[in-house]
Amino acid sequence: MTLKVDIKRIEKDLYELAKFGFNPEDKGIYRQGLTEIDMAARQWLIQQMECAGASVHMDGVGNVRARYGKSEQPAIIIASHLDSVPAGGMFDGTLGVIAGLEVIRQLNENKIQLDCPIEVIATSEEEGRFGGMLGAQALSGQITKDWIESAKDASGQTLVSAMQNCGLNPLDAFHARIDPKTIKAFLELHIEQGPVLEAKQKQIGVVNGISGVFKWLVRLIGKADHAGTAPMNMRSDAFMGVADFAHEISRIIDEEGSESSRLTIGKVELKPGYAHTIPGEADFTLVGRDLDANVMEQIALSCRKVLSAIARKHNLMFEYEQMSWLEPKKFSSQIVSQIESIAQSQNIDYLVMPSGAGHDCQFFADIVPTGLIFIPSVGGVSHAPDEWSHWNDVQRGCDLLLATVLKLAEYSEL
Amino acid sequence: MTLKVDIKRIEKDLYELAKFGFNPEDKGIYRQGLTEIDMAARQWLIQQMECAGASVHMDGVGNVRARYGKSEQPAIIIASHLDSVPAGGMFDGTLGVIAGLEVIRQLNENKIQLDCPIEVIATSEEEGRFGGMLGAQALSGQITKDWIESAKDASGQTLVSAMQNCGLNPLDAFHARIDPKTIKAFLELHIEQGPVLEAKQKQIGVVNGISGVFKWLVRLIGKADHAGTAPMNMRSDAFMGVADFAHEISRIIDEEGSESSRLTIGKVELKPGYAHTIPGEADFTLVGRDLDANVMEQIALSCRKVLSAIARKHNLMFEYEQMSWLEPKKFSSQIVSQIESIAQSQNIDYLVMPSGAGHDCQFFADIVPTGLIFIPSVGGVSHAPDEWSHWNDVQRGCDLLLATVLKLAEYSEL
Repeated sequence: MTLKVDIKRIEKDLYELAKFGFNPEDKGIYRQGLTEIDMAARQWLIQQMECAGASVHMDGVGNVRARYGKSEQPAIIIASHLDSVPAGGMFDGTLGVIAGLEVIRQLNENKIQLDCPIEVIATSEEEGRFGGMLGAQALSGQITKDWIESAKDASGQTLVSAMQNCGLNPLDAFHARIDPKTIKAFLELHIEQGPVLEAKQKQIGVVNGISGVFKWLVRLIGKADHAGTAPMNMRSDAFMGVADFAHEISRIIDEEGSESSRLTIGKVELKPGYAHTIPGEADFTLVGRDLDANVMEQIALSCRKVLSAIARKHNLMFEYEQMSWLEPKKFSSQIVSQIESIAQSQNIDYLVMPSGAGHDCQFFADIVPTGLIFIPSVGGVSHAPDEWSHWNDVQRGCDLLLATVLKLAEYSEL
Repeated sequence: MTLKVDIKRIEKDLYELAKFGFNPEDKGIYRQGLTEIDMAARQWLIQQMECAGASVHMDGVGNVRARYGKSEQPAIIIASHLDSVPAGGMFDGTLGVIAGLEVIRQLNENKIQLDCPIEVIATSEEEGRFGGMLGAQALSGQITKDWIESAKDASGQTLVSAMQNCGLNPLDAFHARIDPKTIKAFLELHIEQGPVLEAKQKQIGVVNGISGVFKWLVRLIGKADHAGTAPMNMRSDAFMGVADFAHEISRIIDEEGSESSRLTIGKVELKPGYAHTIPGEADFTLVGRDLDANVMEQIALSCRKVLSAIARKHNLMFEYEQMSWLEPKKFSSQIVSQIESIAQSQNIDYLVMPSGAGHDCQFFADIVPTGLIFIPSVGGVSHAPDEWSHWNDVQRGCDLLLATVLKLAEYSEL
């Protein structure tokens, strides 16, 4: 007999959680990390976890850690986050936490004794209110004292004061790390937050890695001139440089990139920015992604070359600042194969795919065997009140997670 | 003997005028229309004009009108403006006024009796502080009561209160109109404010018209998506629409335009404007110009077609609002030929060219025989403290203006 989750119970839990921070005006959920409402949701979760038979505690950064099973063996961790962006939806993060809760309930109700403990973690502050993923970074030991002491949110509130307001001692953040030797595997279930699964009519995404990402601030400097008096062939129009570059993006990806490549110009500022003045300067952001570190390098190199050539052609100066460069994270091929094999046995039409967005699990990919399962997002929408996933997709994803946990628990070592 | 201007005197006058509103910090001139300092400059000018033998008065909008010669015949008007943009230069506008003053001085000192009077007008508020060219519009009868009563500057001050602060009665604006029957010709001397004469090593521009101009606000609406999760081929990236259109601008002009065509994207706003979000909306300004009304129509038509096609290709919605459409103004071919012929006799290497910028004289082009002479701008710069023109170019332009006035005065009718 194959164990199955209780989708009605999962549905009820998700609706229950959605009440924490719900705004009836825009129907969005406002449950940003390290706020009173976020802590209230965590207290609710602690109760549910304890009812399910887990031993629960909150660590120094607000992660809720619910452990099930008495064994001292390395644990299988199921984790995702409870916090939301402002005006967020009811699946992002919470789905993975409630799926973990349901796994513990199933084990408890069916009196299943696994050889290893299961730990469900509702991570703290994943959505980057303070510019990182506090919970997962603390768990994986990837925080610094300097960051904890200096981080602020967009309104200027410090991370330290937000933690203190939640009854947390900032110095306890450094006690949150889990020794990797005590982790057998790290699993996350999440909504895709993109349109691929829906467009390809796939039921599940088996994620093989998280794309690396670089962010540049690019500046093209030409000459601001009167848009009436300067003939077309005597201009140094900074915007024409941006436009020409944008036009080359598809070629750059065709030549240097892969299916997981992304290049996006999300913000453009022209100076002086008057209708009747030729732009003398154009500042824009360029964000690039790929699942392969070498491909990322090649794309970045090509962007530099193309920008230099376009700057010369338009008589512009070109400069850029690399704001960040995060390497791709590849997930354990053993975990990916295992999830694939279970998906096949469950007749799931799945897609092996990269994640273009960051997730809690990325901080564990280099440390322990790690896996991530996606379910389809309707219209690819997330971080918005109309974020939605169909309940049969939710059920399929939770069943796959449960089966994966049961299978991995059978292995003496991964 | 050919009458010549006294360049030393012109130089002295221009430096004298430059003191009104000079800011030692950025070396710019701040003499915006209808300000105390602008009125002080006008009082200075009135004194100079009276010393030169002219009868001078200020009209209801602040235009200084200096008349020389007793004849009741239609007058030759020499006009330009005395006001500046904020942080402007010392030639824009003032050159044409001082050139007119020098013409009167030469006539007076050389006791030359012309068959027609000469009127030099220092127009009021040409730089558009209140969104028009108040002085020239009032002189040519192209103001409305509604505009006078509702116009405001960027700081919110009303035109009415600015006029009152300068001791002007707003209702007197409607007494400023000159009956076209009393005008024989309207002449203006101005700096080019562009790079063409310098680049082509021409000494003088004989302007044959002022380009028409249209201004559109264009909006492309796509779908804001996560820049990591949305694959390149599943995006409705509004900025890519703008970039593709910008890329087509040179082709549109090659196919539909002329040497006087201009198309400029001066301002772009992306929404939401985040580095990690695909732009869901792009709002931009498109300003087009040409000297020929039909060509302007063709360019505008082509822009619409190209934008529609690009919107379809990128799965975007396209809409635009036409903020303004000003028809081109062609100058009297008789005046243009006359100036050309004098330039030839003075061995001036001139260029017949359109003006891409607006000038006081444009309001008279349809009403009376009108002409405009350009002198080169160093580096094409204007509306900036480092606006400059070489003194020998200033001299050449003023001599050409003087000779033109003397020649036109000989005709019984134009």
